[in-house]
Amino acid sequence: MSGFGRPGSDHSQCGAMTAASPVLAFQALELARQALWLSNPNPRVGCILCAPAGRILGQGHTQQAGGPHAEVMALRDAAARGHDVRGATAYVTLEPCSHHGRTGPCCDALIQAGIARVVASIADPNPLVSGRGFERLRAAGVQVEVGAGAAGSRELNIGFFSRMVRQTPWVRLKVAASLDGTTALDNGASQWITSEAARTDGHAWRARACAVLTGIGTVLEDDPQLDVRLVQAPRQPHAVLVDSRLELPLTARLLRPGRKLLVYAAVADAAKRAALEARGATVILLPGPGGKVDLPAMLRDLARREVNELHVEAGHKLNGSLVREGLVDEFLVYLAPKLLGPGRGMAALAPLGELSKAVPLQFTSTEAVGPDLRILARIPGRDAF
Amino acid sequence: MSGFGRPGSDHSQCGAMTAASPVLAFQALELARQALWLSNPNPRVGCILCAPAGRILGQGHTQQAGGPHAEVMALRDAAARGHDVRGATAYVTLEPCSHHGRTGPCCDALIQAGIARVVASIADPNPLVSGRGFERLRAAGVQVEVGAGAAGSRELNIGFFSRMVRQTPWVRLKVAASLDGTTALDNGASQWITSEAARTDGHAWRARACAVLTGIGTVLEDDPQLDVRLVQAPRQPHAVLVDSRLELPLTARLLRPGRKLLVYAAVADAAKRAALEARGATVILLPGPGGKVDLPAMLRDLARREVNELHVEAGHKLNGSLVREGLVDEFLVYLAPKLLGPGRGMAALAPLGELSKAVPLQFTSTEAVGPDLRILARIPGRDAF
Repeated sequence: MSGFGRPGSDHSQCGAMTAASPVLAFQALELARQALWLSNPNPRVGCILCAPAGRILGQGHTQQAGGPHAEVMALRDAAARGHDVRGATAYVTLEPCSHHGRTGPCCDALIQAGIARVVASIADPNPLVSGRGFERLRAAGVQVEVGAGAAGSRELNIGFFSRMVRQTPWVRLKVAASLDGTTALDNGASQWITSEAARTDGHAWRARACAVLTGIGTVLEDDPQLDVRLVQAPRQPHAVLVDSRLELPLTARLLRPGRKLLVYAAVADAAKRAALEARGATVILLPGPGGKVDLPAMLRDLARREVNELHVEAGHKLNGSLVREGLVDEFLVYLAPKLLGPGRGMAALAPLGELSKAVPLQFTSTEAVGPDLRILARIPGRDAF
Repeated sequence: MSGFGRPGSDHSQCGAMTAASPVLAFQALELARQALWLSNPNPRVGCILCAPAGRILGQGHTQQAGGPHAEVMALRDAAARGHDVRGATAYVTLEPCSHHGRTGPCCDALIQAGIARVVASIADPNPLVSGRGFERLRAAGVQVEVGAGAAGSRELNIGFFSRMVRQTPWVRLKVAASLDGTTALDNGASQWITSEAARTDGHAWRARACAVLTGIGTVLEDDPQLDVRLVQAPRQPHAVLVDSRLELPLTARLLRPGRKLLVYAAVADAAKRAALEARGATVILLPGPGGKVDLPAMLRDLARREVNELHVEAGHKLNGSLVREGLVDEFLVYLAPKLLGPGRGMAALAPLGELSKAVPLQFTSTEAVGPDLRILARIPGRDAF
């Protein structure tokens, strides 16, 4: 709140009589970001309570699923600091919940605490509850304003919004390639094309996802763990495997005790299924055309299982299927400064007859990560749900 | 010189008794950049004359080949402004020349004008003249300091330094590709993968090169002009064609009157050669192994013909040959936000058996150009000559 060069500005940002403070909305969003690796499948939400005179009384963000939401954390923080929050304004990056989920409704907590005003970034995307929180607050006499920081809050929770609105996860496909687009040699060698810095960054992106998806080809070739190891994360994403013929070896590292593994198959092999389930896996039969897993149905099933962001780290074949079926929302591409020449590409697509048939993308960010480049590219319009 | 917040700082930067001013060295380099498209094959040089008390008396940069060098331009500028330059300091981004080339030696002009001190960024890379200018100045009682802005001046003139030191041009290979590295479909379609903004930017890179190189495959397929059209440039780079069997059609657009075209061939076809030369082309026979043009010999020949920066816009085959023979210094890559799937890559290389055999690069810059990305990547160590 300081550093803007106007003396006293930190005491004029959030009184109930003044306009909503964009600075506090921004700070609440920064708090929400602290829940990035933590709150799945709950949304990442931040909350700041401030007195009419402008003093910050308490703040918090969503904890692990089953734990307190941001509003409750902020109220507890204020209480721990001995602050009276009656008449205060709550800046919160998502509409406070009005329903009993794993925890009590945040609306009631705010009302009971005597909060006079709620400045919320955006309504809850769940069509079943959207607006109910605001109604409940207003009915209790709480002043409600909506919109400050809306785009940032939605983007931070793009997977949650996707699951609530589209009933599918936000699908982010990660590839590591040489500058000339090769992701593996013809003999399958792909470890490692990018640097340790890029692989560490990749783990940070795994950490924010509810689940990491791969295909049986990658498992048979590389036996990956697909967990978060290179960064310290409070929870592990589930592992999801597309394994049409249930070829997953019982010795695969994905079958580690304590790790949640969903195996999507297209053939009913009762013995193999039983063996996998005995090792803790959940096998889901979703046959689609050509003896393959029905990938759109798989995404719907994953959303039902509360997967917000699905992080794909698969080979070019499964990548190709996902792209061809129009199921990818975003590409997370690490480019290493090298040329590898011919080999496997990012996604096995059919040769095009004309350039206009390309899969269109839009670059949304480029960053140096160690010696490599990280490029985010989105299918235009895919985030307009 | 202003804008650094210290009152009077613009009058304390360049007195003969003070240390050399990094700000003026930087400004001289900015002047040199104005010669980027202009001075080929002469180096891009800037010069600022300032009085002992700090006032700028005159400035200038190298003009077109045959025209005045930066020092003479600055002296003329000072004269035109009615300034007396006796006792002044000259900031110049390259050692002043001591030899009679197309113009008289700049050292003599500075000495005759009564310049008391020369602050030069870097010595002339030409081993035959390097240091002679400084000697001549010192012999005439001019104080000489060398080093301010050295790296920037060398980088701006990387092609000139390459030609002088290595006797080969600096080879910059430009490709336009989709994010997945495809530069053309299997049917050859490649117009256009990147945006007009990227193509315009590409013309700006052509404009700074002494010559643009392509291969006969590209000519037969696309009949390119390879000139600078999308930006206003004061001169056109030469066109250079690798055409081992002299297949260039007499109707090709490269054979436009007034355009300098060098055709490198491996077969002596006197009739075709005569026909091409009648249309203004210069045909150079440089047979190498396998009935192909001897590419390293071609680069040496181009350096003898005063090519500093060679801008390559060729197909994947010639690109592959250049990369395989270790002749490329830098890659200028435009990536379009799209996936094209299989097709032609950036450079036709043999499949690798292991990842460690990759062609190593180093990213030196990434910029958004319209919807596309422009990536510069350099072969590590190639600029250490």
